[in-house]
Amino acid sequence: MRGVTIVEVAPRDGFQSVGPFIPTDEKIRIVRALYAAGLRRIEVTSFVGNAVPQLADAVEVLAAALALPGLDAQVLVPTQKHTERALAAGARHVAFFLSASERHNLNNVRRTPAESVRDYAKIAAMLPAGIKFRLNIATSFDCPFVGKIAPQLVLDLLDELVALEPNAEIALCDTTGRATPGHVAALFTAAMARFPQVPGWAFHGHDTYGMGAANAFAAWTAGVEVIDASAAGLGGCPFAPGATGNVATEDLVWMFEGMNVATGVDLPLLLEAGREIMQLPGAQTGGRVREALRVAKI
Amino acid sequence: MRGVTIVEVAPRDGFQSVGPFIPTDEKIRIVRALYAAGLRRIEVTSFVGNAVPQLADAVEVLAAALALPGLDAQVLVPTQKHTERALAAGARHVAFFLSASERHNLNNVRRTPAESVRDYAKIAAMLPAGIKFRLNIATSFDCPFVGKIAPQLVLDLLDELVALEPNAEIALCDTTGRATPGHVAALFTAAMARFPQVPGWAFHGHDTYGMGAANAFAAWTAGVEVIDASAAGLGGCPFAPGATGNVATEDLVWMFEGMNVATGVDLPLLLEAGREIMQLPGAQTGGRVREALRVAKI
Repeated sequence: MRGVTIVEVAPRDGFQSVGPFIPTDEKIRIVRALYAAGLRRIEVTSFVGNAVPQLADAVEVLAAALALPGLDAQVLVPTQKHTERALAAGARHVAFFLSASERHNLNNVRRTPAESVRDYAKIAAMLPAGIKFRLNIATSFDCPFVGKIAPQLVLDLLDELVALEPNAEIALCDTTGRATPGHVAALFTAAMARFPQVPGWAFHGHDTYGMGAANAFAAWTAGVEVIDASAAGLGGCPFAPGATGNVATEDLVWMFEGMNVATGVDLPLLLEAGREIMQLPGAQTGGRVREALRVAKI
Repeated sequence: MRGVTIVEVAPRDGFQSVGPFIPTDEKIRIVRALYAAGLRRIEVTSFVGNAVPQLADAVEVLAAALALPGLDAQVLVPTQKHTERALAAGARHVAFFLSASERHNLNNVRRTPAESVRDYAKIAAMLPAGIKFRLNIATSFDCPFVGKIAPQLVLDLLDELVALEPNAEIALCDTTGRATPGHVAALFTAAMARFPQVPGWAFHGHDTYGMGAANAFAAWTAGVEVIDASAAGLGGCPFAPGATGNVATEDLVWMFEGMNVATGVDLPLLLEAGREIMQLPGAQTGGRVREALRVAKI
């Protein structure tokens, strides 16, 4: 039986959606609690400069994460300049992102997809050996502005991106949560068949329409073994109206462990980390397993 | 592409979980609203006598449902005596239920599974030609008292039940919502291979642990084309602590229509019917699509 690697994104995608600044110490405490629960791949922050004030302490949070043995601490970077900062701060794993939807890309990073492709090429060219690289394709299924994204559009974009950098892991992201499991399975199946050289595929989903677990199951069934999730369902996207949280890590751990697919995560410890997250002022949380287990114990 | 038939169970499984008596007129109004949304198979009530005071008006509700052209109005019956009452009231489709878990069956209907099998045989023998028959196997995956149910236990029980009545549709029910999609797909795949003579299979799931849509997708992928759901996620089980609502009909319609699998249901009209349900005093509701669409329109 294949296992699954959950990439915990609460410290980046989640924190980014929280209004009040979360003190750096509290962020680090949460990263450590997630690590203590067994999560070994965490997107700990984003080097985005002034664009997201919540993540202005990227250097400090990354430093704390790098001190945790065996943790694959991933950071998000939008440009070459920010990648330089991330590398200077010690990052060993960087993730770039662009949107399949032109309009979403313009809104999100103020660049056309073609401009973002050039940024991607520059970053790929500058990364020293041994630095892991991930490419996130936002709005791979649906865009908040133009609706459903045709699979062919994503495959055509990947033709260019994979040729530029054949060694990056590629995450297809359901930014709005409007993807359905048949679409998820079909796009991954087509992409994996077309780009056998890609070393790894990942799925990033939101639970806004209740499809988080179903889409993760569909991706896993199609062969995807890396799936993003956010503890306590913390998350959202300021540029995707109606997109509430990422799928809750608790729900995916419950699902995969129930299927005898090892996650390496200790659910009770994860619930403890989630309780800290739920207490953050301004946190919007989600998921079902936490509440179900609470009620079951009464 | 195969379609899917959603069996709307809010008027039975849902209403049954509501404390304050819902006036018969209001029940009928909701059945009509669900019908207006395109649902053509509805479990409209249960003939259970005094056991569930909420459904004491089964005769009246069934009569109103039978007046709706083309509606397959299914009713739940626990014994031969109640089946006689249902038939006298004009029922054309009856559903019997027993639990795979002995302990759940004792709690739910105060009978051993062997006694329930005898009841099933009696009902099968008394049904006139042309009356549709469904068999619900509660706790087919998990029991609130003993935990996970081994697939072999369900298959062994079906050996006996299918031999007694080869013409009934069989629903495997995730009573607690603790099933995961791999388990759902595996049990249906095994059961469908072992009992090719069974004319139809159905899945009944709860969303307590957030697996409602994922499990429905897994069942559909395994070949199941009849899936129970409850508008507005209304539901629960008084004998299964922690079991909140059935999976929301809105969420399944969203999922299947998103996959180009026809449901015959008009989502905006379904949301209207759901609004009536949410206003019932004492209603516990769930699902995600309703709220997501509300937020998206703001």
